[in-house]
Order: sequence, then C-alpha cells, then structure tokens
Amino acid sequence: MRRALELAALGPAVGDHARVGAVILSPAGDVLGEGWHRGAGTPHAEVAAMAEVPAEQLRGATAVVTLEPCNHVGRTGPCALALIEAGVGRVVYAVDDPGEHAHGGADRLRAAGVDVVSGLLADEAEAFLERWLLSVRTGRPWVTVKWASSLDGRVAAADGTSRWITGAAARQHVHEQRAAHDAILVGTGTVLADDPSLTARGDAGELLADQPLPVVVGDRAVPDTAAVRRHPRGLLALPGHDLADALRTLRDHGVHSVFVEGGPTVASALIADGLVDEVLVYLAPVLLGGPRVAIGDVGVGSIGDRRQLDVTSTTSLGPDLLVRARPHRPRTGSGRPAEGTAPTGAATTADQAQNDRSTA
Amino acid sequence: MRRALELAALGPAVGDHARVGAVILSPAGDVLGEGWHRGAGTPHAEVAAMAEVPAEQLRGATAVVTLEPCNHVGRTGPCALALIEAGVGRVVYAVDDPGEHAHGGADRLRAAGVDVVSGLLADEAEAFLERWLLSVRTGRPWVTVKWASSLDGRVAAADGTSRWITGAAARQHVHEQRAAHDAILVGTGTVLADDPSLTARGDAGELLADQPLPVVVGDRAVPDTAAVRRHPRGLLALPGHDLADALRTLRDHGVHSVFVEGGPTVASALIADGLVDEVLVYLAPVLLGGPRVAIGDVGVGSIGDRRQLDVTSTTSLGPDLLVRARPHRPRTGSGRPAEGTAPTGAATTADQAQNDRSTA
Ligand SMILES: NC(=O)c1ccc[n+]([C@@H]2O[C@H](COP(=O)([O-])OP(=O)(O)OC[C@H]3O[C@@H](n4cnc5c(N)ncnc54)[C@H](OP(=O)(O)O)[C@@H]3O)[C@@H](O)[C@H]2O)c1
Ligand SMILES: NC(=O)c1ccc[n+]([C@@H]2O[C@H](COP(=O)([O-])OP(=O)(O)OC[C@H]3O[C@@H](n4cnc5c(N)ncnc54)[C@H](OP(=O)(O)O)[C@@H]3O)[C@@H](O)[C@H]2O)c1
Repeated sequence: MRRALELAALGPAVGDHARVGAVILSPAGDVLGEGWHRGAGTPHAEVAAMAEVPAEQLRGATAVVTLEPCNHVGRTGPCALALIEAGVGRVVYAVDDPGEHAHGGADRLRAAGVDVVSGLLADEAEAFLERWLLSVRTGRPWVTVKWASSLDGRVAAADGTSRWITGAAARQHVHEQRAAHDAILVGTGTVLADDPSLTARGDAGELLADQPLPVVVGDRAVPDTAAVRRHPRGLLALPGHDLADALRTLRDHGVHSVFVEGGPTVASALIADGLVDEVLVYLAPVLLGGPRVAIGDVGVGSIGDRRQLDVTSTTSLGPDLLVRARPHRPRTGSGRPAEGTAPTGAATTADQAQNDRSTA
Repeated sequence: MRRALELAALGPAVGDHARVGAVILSPAGDVLGEGWHRGAGTPHAEVAAMAEVPAEQLRGATAVVTLEPCNHVGRTGPCALALIEAGVGRVVYAVDDPGEHAHGGADRLRAAGVDVVSGLLADEAEAFLERWLLSVRTGRPWVTVKWASSLDGRVAAADGTSRWITGAAARQHVHEQRAAHDAILVGTGTVLADDPSLTARGDAGELLADQPLPVVVGDRAVPDTAAVRRHPRGLLALPGHDLADALRTLRDHGVHSVFVEGGPTVASALIADGLVDEVLVYLAPVLLGGPRVAIGDVGVGSIGDRRQLDVTSTTSLGPDLLVRARPHRPRTGSGRPAEGTAPTGAATTADQAQNDRSTA
C-alpha cells in the first residue's frame, strides 16, 4: 500500500480527478504490475496496473489500491467490473469511495466472490487525498485562504500603499501555492485596487506549468484592460456575494481546490461562513498599525465564538514567517479528526481549562 | 573573559546595577580569584575577585573584567584605584564604561603604568549587558513591549471579551518576562478594564522571587480597590501622556528595563515614538476579526514609513507562537548593529530590491 501511495503521487496534483495508485501482486507477493491515474479521461490506477500484467497472471492475483475501486461508468468503465472480469482474487484498498454510490465497488467485488479488505493505511491515504475527498463529500472545493500581513495584522499602510510587505521567498511560495490549486479566487476589490495577473510564476517571472483558473467574485465589472483578462486559463467572473454558491459553481467546473488571495472582504466572509479548510498567513516583520486590517469581521461577537485553529506548521521564508493552520477539530476517541469542515466556534472544555487571559 | 562572563551571569538579572564578572590571573595564567557583582551597594566584580587573592599575589597579576573598571566614587570606591593600589600589572576588559566619565577608568590605569587591553569578546559582553548599557547611554530604561493577539492581530472579540486567547504556556512565559524586568508598565485603560495584579507568578500562582515595579501611566485615577494597589512593590502612578518623560522618571528610580503589557494605546504610542527596543508577540491560533486590534496607530501613513523589525526568534508555546523581534538596524560595515534605538522607518535599498507585493 505504501508503494501504491507513492505511485498515486506520480499523478498530476491538480485537475478534476483523484490521485490514485495501484499495485498488482502475485499470490506469492511479487509485484506484477504498477499503475497510477494520470488525470481525467485516462485509465484508473487499477486498470493501468492490470494492463502491465499478462491475463493469465491476473487470475487469483491481489490488487492493492489506494482508493476503493469505482462502480460507475464515467469517462472510463467501472474498475470493479474490470477486476472481476480479470479474475483478480483479492482487492486491498485504503479509502472508501466517497461518491454517491459509496461502497458500490467493494460490494460488487464481494458479490462476485472477490476477497475485499479496506482501511489499510487509511489515515495516510485520507490525508493524501484530503482535498479531493472533501470536494466530493461536500460538493464544494477545498478552500485555502492566504493573506500576507504585518505582524500586527495589516495588509497595507493607512494610505493603502502595500508594496514590500513580504519578501521574495514568501512571494515565491505564494506562486507555488497558486500552481498547487485548481483555481485562484479574489474579490472585485482586489482586481480594481491591484490589477493582479493571478498567474503562477517562477523565480524569473516565467509562467509555471500548472496555471490555476482565475476567479473573480463580486458585482462590479472586471475592466477590459485588467491583467487577469490576459490569463492563459481565461477569466471566470462570478457575480453576487453568495460564496457558498460560487464555490459550488466552481466544483461543477471540475475545481477541487481553490486558493483565495483576498482581499480582506472576501477572506473574512469565507471565514465567517465556515467555508475555509486551511489558512496560510505570511507574516512580515513589520508594524503598520492603522485601519487596513487583513481580516475584517469574521462573525465573532464574543470570545466564546472565536474561530479556533490548529497550527500545522510555522516556516521561515527569508525575513518572513509562514503560519499554516486549519480550523480546530476536537480529537475523537480514535485519534482521527472528526469530519466536517466548518471552523468550530468554541474550543473544548479541556482547551479552556488550559487557557487564561494573558494580562492578569 | 568567557569565565568572567559566566561569573557576571551569577549576579541578579534585575536591579540598579550592571552585571559584571572578573577573574584574577597569575603571570603564569593560573586563576587566583573570581568575583561578580551581587547588586547595588555591594563590591564591584574586580574588587570581589581581588578579595580572594593574597596581597602579594596581586602584584603583577592580570585582572580580566567584563566591563571597564570604574573611576567614580559611588556606593563603592573607584575600582581603577583599587587595582592600581594592589599593584595589578595588566587589566583586560570587554566593554567600555558607557557612563559620563567614559574611559576614565582605563585612562587612570594607563596613567599609573598598568597595561590595559580592551574589546576582548566585546560583542558578547555588549549583548549580555545590552539593557543596562542602553539605559546608561540613553537615560531611559530598555523597553520590551509585549502583546498577545489572535493570528489576525486582535486582543479581544468585538464585545471586549478576551479570556483564553493565549494558553497556559504563553501565560507562564509572560510571568517569567515580568520577573526579568525591573518594572512592568500599563496604561490606565488596562487597569480599569482588566484590574490586573501585575505580579510575576509561578505555575501554581505563587509570587516569584523577583517582582517588577508596577507602573501605570495616564491621568485617570487608579481605584483604591485596584489589585495593583496590593502589589508587593507598591504602585507607581505616572500621570500624563509623555511616555519619554515617564521612562526618564523610571530611570531615575533605578529602573533599567521595563516590560510593557499594554494596552493597545500605550503600546502603539511607544512604537510611534520610537521608544521600543524589543517586541514580544504571543500569537494564538485563533481568528477574531472586529475592531479590537492589538496595535492601533503607530505613526505609519505610507508603506515607506513602516516600522521594520528583525525577528530574533520564533518559539512554540503550547498551541501559541511567540515571535520576538527588534527594530531593524541596517548592518554596518563591521557587521555590528549600528547604535541608536529608534525603529528605522524605511528599509534599506537592498531590502526593497528583494521585496515585492504578494498579490501581483
Ligand atoms: N496582503 C494581501 O494578502 C492582500 C491580498 C489581496 C488584496 N489585498 C488588498 O486588499 C484591498 C482590497 O480589499 P477588498 O476587501 O475590497 O477586496 P476583495 O475582498 O477582493 O473584494 C471585495 C469585493 O468582493 C465582492 N464580494 C464577493 N462576495 C462577497 C461577500 N460575501 N461579501 C462582501 N463582498 C463580496 C464585493 O464586490 P462587489 O462590490 O463588486 O459586488 C466586494 O466589494 C486592496 O487594497 C488590496 O491591495 C491584500
Ligand atoms: N492581549 C493583550 O496583550 C492586552 C494587554 C493589555 C490590555 N489589553 C486590553 O486592552 C484594553 C485596554 O486598552 P487601552 O488602549 O485603553 O489601554 P491602555 O493603553 O493600557 O491605556 C490607555 C490609556 O493610557 C494613558 N496614556 C498614557 N500615555 C499615553 C499616550 N502617550 N497616548 C495615549 N494614552 C496614553 C491614557 O490614560 P488617561 O486617559 O487616563 O490619561 C489612555 O487612555 C483592555 O480591553 C484590555 O483587556 C490586552
């Protein structure tokens, strides 16, 4: 299964597909074939792996797959059927198919007499597939919200000037994040104020191979001369202020992950609506003060409603600091995070007992 | 000299004195005596070290001292004279005496025929003595400003509630910082809102050995029932809003270091006035949004005036993050930071060339 996960990682990181890997083993445990999913419209991992193995050796073999074999006819036939027809004796998989017909694949295999084992390295495979799983489970893409601010939480000086808050290393990191998401989203305010190109670029300003779909939300028109109109993926403008709806629309466009680069209004609204799965805060060692805060109203009236996060990493990027965090999930008995993606309002009692105000 | 610095560190970290260490060496380089300064009114380090050595062995010996021997009659006699009278042949020291009569001690020793060497491990000794040196050089205490905020820079929710922003580990760290400064300063706003006791306490709430002098600045009266009125050091209330003046007054009270715990008004005013030597920002993994920012107006109208900092460390404290930073000092040719303590407004050209806005 570990090898299958390695294979899965060979697939493209962005696009309308799950990254899946598969290994075919002989009854003696020798590797007969390997495969991974190369993107929408190409064979699924188990089918790609089977293609490497002579038909007679597939009979009685074991297929190890990171995701439950599918049971639907999509752009490719159902993998469960292909495994049955090939005479595979045993299927071991990590994560259940989260789709509408969950367990269809496993059930169909079992009904055909195939030995099915699920849950192997499930935590690792879940983490690897988290963006895709979330988008299938919730019907909206994974949402990463990024902002770059001074140490005191400002995105610009009082007069609105903001050049050179964060440095080159942080900027490059942002470009890599753009390339690692299916879409990049900003509000009309950012387009009108900054005229960003919303492309993913390398050190020398060259376009990276993966370009996110640029999305602008809000009613105001994006000017004909806006840089984002020259984006290689073309512009998707979504009028209105219903961000949950905008995200569902993106999901319908095959977008599984969105990188939100602001501005403050859109970022705050997403946080307030509980539509954020990860935040990336680039903190520059600078104090600005004044009115231009990175985050405005996030629907927290009283401290009990605070949006609690779990910091997953803190990284130095040149002089700046990147704090990655996710909405806090109270630990469940099994040690696995509970499902659901809305930032929790109040912390658990155990947290509160540990806490106290800092000036007392 | 390294041993002398170790000895210096044995002296009390707070109080109206420099922490100095001294070692007496025989002409062959053997250690004859060691001493350190134990606080105001006690013998200086070199005198304490000499007291360990028989008079005949002092003749022709070498005294290694972290600070230039003094030449003034204070609560103790001038050390330069004591060294001359004892017949010490050589004095090696790290840092020049920053007092009004700078070089008085070294000059007096040289005039008496003593061989004098200065500057050994000077950077280390400067760093070790930085708070005291700054207070002697500028006439105001070293100022550390602390705030605890959410990741988006808020100290409280919209309704003013703020319990449980940072956790137990951060709180304990704050108490250790209180104990490591001569005074703790807040504005009347914090006293009236929070009624803090401003004592340095341990894990179990017990008072620590070193208690800072509690100082409240502002015109409003501190209520008779305020917790700070029961502080073991007694309360020092300084009316008015002239913070430079308040700091000079503290220096006259023998205070060499002040820990400023807010609130936002006082912290921002100190930053705006360039009166801050270090900031400690405790960041809780929480988003609050709303109007209650940790830092208000710091006198930055345009991005070119930003208060640039150098981060000196980033530490995890339970779920929270402590960022320590100092006003940015452009590097001088010698690699040592330039003198002066005001945060510099604009960054150097080299910095700017490295920087760019992050949404472009
Ligand atoms: N440092 C950083 O990381 C960073 C990143 C981006 C931007 N910025 C700065 O942020 C500033 C722009 O701020 P901004 O807040 O105006 O930009 P914004 O969030 O990009 O745009 C705000 C606009 O988004 C639209 N919108 C869509 N859904 C909404 C909702 N649910 N609620 C409210 N509005 C919604 C509205 O457009 P309509 O009014 O057209 O309907 C609204 O006016 C610029 O100065 C820019 O430089 C900084
Ligand atoms: N999270 C944290 O780290 C933290 C720490 C402390 C406080 N807080 C919160 O901060 C809030 C209090 O905020 P605050 O800003 O009112 O408190 P503050 O800064 O402690 O007090 C403000 C007062 O300081 C006086 N002052 C002295 N010098 C001044 C100057 N140069 N400029 C202006 N005022 C000067 C004025 O008092 P007069 O009007 O009496 O003259 C002013 O009203 C409370 O809600 C508290 O919970 C949070």
